[in-house]
Amino acid sequence: MKLLQETLRGIEPSNKLAIKNAMNVIDNLSKPIGSLGMLEEISAKMAGIKGELKYEKYKKNIIIMCGDNGVVEEGVSTCPQNITRIVMENFTKGTTGVCVLAKKEHAEITVIDVGVNADFNNKKIINKKIAYGTKNIAKGPAMSRSQAIRAIEIGIETVNELSKYGYDMFGTGEMGVGNTTTSAAILSVLLQIDLESAVGKGSGLTDKQLENKKSVVKKAIEVNLPQKSDVIDVISKVGGFDIAALCGCFLGAAEKKLPIVIDGLISSVAALCAYELNNNVKDYIFPSHISAEPGMAFVMKKMGIEPVLNLKMRLGEGSGCPIAFNLIETALYTINNMASFNEAGINKKFYIDIRKA
Amino acid sequence: MKLLQETLRGIEPSNKLAIKNAMNVIDNLSKPIGSLGMLEEISAKMAGIKGELKYEKYKKNIIIMCGDNGVVEEGVSTCPQNITRIVMENFTKGTTGVCVLAKKEHAEITVIDVGVNADFNNKKIINKKIAYGTKNIAKGPAMSRSQAIRAIEIGIETVNELSKYGYDMFGTGEMGVGNTTTSAAILSVLLQIDLESAVGKGSGLTDKQLENKKSVVKKAIEVNLPQKSDVIDVISKVGGFDIAALCGCFLGAAEKKLPIVIDGLISSVAALCAYELNNNVKDYIFPSHISAEPGMAFVMKKMGIEPVLNLKMRLGEGSGCPIAFNLIETALYTINNMASFNEAGINKKFYIDIRKA
Repeated sequence: MKLLQETLRGIEPSNKLAIKNAMNVIDNLSKPIGSLGMLEEISAKMAGIKGELKYEKYKKNIIIMCGDNGVVEEGVSTCPQNITRIVMENFTKGTTGVCVLAKKEHAEITVIDVGVNADFNNKKIINKKIAYGTKNIAKGPAMSRSQAIRAIEIGIETVNELSKYGYDMFGTGEMGVGNTTTSAAILSVLLQIDLESAVGKGSGLTDKQLENKKSVVKKAIEVNLPQKSDVIDVISKVGGFDIAALCGCFLGAAEKKLPIVIDGLISSVAALCAYELNNNVKDYIFPSHISAEPGMAFVMKKMGIEPVLNLKMRLGEGSGCPIAFNLIETALYTINNMASFNEAGINKKFYIDIRKA
Repeated sequence: MKLLQETLRGIEPSNKLAIKNAMNVIDNLSKPIGSLGMLEEISAKMAGIKGELKYEKYKKNIIIMCGDNGVVEEGVSTCPQNITRIVMENFTKGTTGVCVLAKKEHAEITVIDVGVNADFNNKKIINKKIAYGTKNIAKGPAMSRSQAIRAIEIGIETVNELSKYGYDMFGTGEMGVGNTTTSAAILSVLLQIDLESAVGKGSGLTDKQLENKKSVVKKAIEVNLPQKSDVIDVISKVGGFDIAALCGCFLGAAEKKLPIVIDGLISSVAALCAYELNNNVKDYIFPSHISAEPGMAFVMKKMGIEPVLNLKMRLGEGSGCPIAFNLIETALYTINNMASFNEAGINKKFYIDIRKA
């Protein structure tokens, strides 16, 4: 509890003067004002985080929080629970989607067992196990309040530890059969949106299975009565260890003033939880793609951020993060290497700032 | 005329069997079926073009077609015409947006004068000048029919020439003050959409200037009566040398079975012209981002393609292409390096194909 409280207290807004100075530089580059769109916004946001507008190659790490969910006994996924364990082993072999994408973009991954229903004999999987999976949210709370706080603190500790090794840009991934169900439940409570909007087909469900998933989420909320105003209550009652730990990653990165990227639905729900705990975390968070899962768009709207990629992906694992890493570096590289109006021999007065027009 | 006719005759559909085989491979990779979304579609499309599903680093070139537009005398742009020349010189210094982005993604650029109202003493600018700019479309045709055909053939020749040097992936860029006006006019005629939808603020206009731009496009269509069913008539009457030449690039790349990427509004209109001349070109064309210019979305819808990036960019120059190059290579790298279900120890039966569900 102490680490969580200290972290929440330590999160500051990013440097707004640095953002303003960056925009001045950007608006003096030889191009129609604002014409590089999100590349400009990404660069300015990074300047706010780092205190200056500078291109560098970041040391990137995707933290994959893994946990099992008791709710799978309600038939909310077509996969058996042991797929969590199998995919985790495959992360360490470098053969899953996120591994290959991370390798392409020179990022590393960190695999953490926060609460998987299996034991591992694998040095590449970090053991932070709280329990052998959560309890079934359709019947009662997923975990105790103190377990939820512990899971969040595991996320904070992970970022703190990795930052000591020089990692300065993070991605967020997860593995846990059933976690689109827990994500939908949290989303539905925190944003007060209906089940049609919150619940999607996850890794693949028939229409009939989707209806069952919706009624399970409905039941979980009715049985547990999570309190919208108390994020930790919501996480502990209808969430999962993976989401809680990722929430901690967002808090930890914000406290350390390091950029952190959202992947799909589950990590966006974790980001939302962190945002509800401290609005300043938004200054450090970059979305990557908009998931094919329907609920994510509501999270983006609530947080006032917009993904730049529309890849119709719904894999999870953190697979959208490497592509976003590249875009962030590309944005900064571009802004830092273009000529100014003066250097280009072009009079700035020819361009109207249509952001202000 | 002979080159254009031969090229149009030589354009074949891509290899549909190779696409089917690629999808079989993709659907046996260890992930929920379809969960890599557009990365899968991009990879399969590339397999159709290349005949096999293979990752390789492409030799990439962004062809920047440059031409001046007589219509600027109607006040459709805030920039004076000589900005075309100045920016072209800056292309050769490597300091504009597209240059920096291309360098980041290891692509080269080719700058071609198809009809700029200036003379150059610069070895890095290829002289293919047809005229010192087009005529004012608000008063009569931009160019003669034979000039339009010549401009298209310059595009075909450029791709043919570059492919001899081993370039096997192309981007499309342009520079020409006034070319969002000509693009809007072509778009409005070919897709029969209203001016509100077709005409945007280009590099920056006030609301009042935007109204003038719309009335200029309206007048150009009324004065010239371009024939919707005859693309070359439309280009010659209300288009520009840059758009015509880019149209030729799309045709040339399709005929050579090489992938070619759209940037923003202007290159998308050129792609539409090529598509109207031979629908098979669509098999070789990749969109990159959706421009902040409103008309582009209509072109995408007509061609049934969808950009994966939403960067709110409106710079032109081909600046969206390098980012798309990276995504195409990333897609192929990912698909070619992931483990199959068999290798991953996962039974495929756990995943429903929600594309078919």
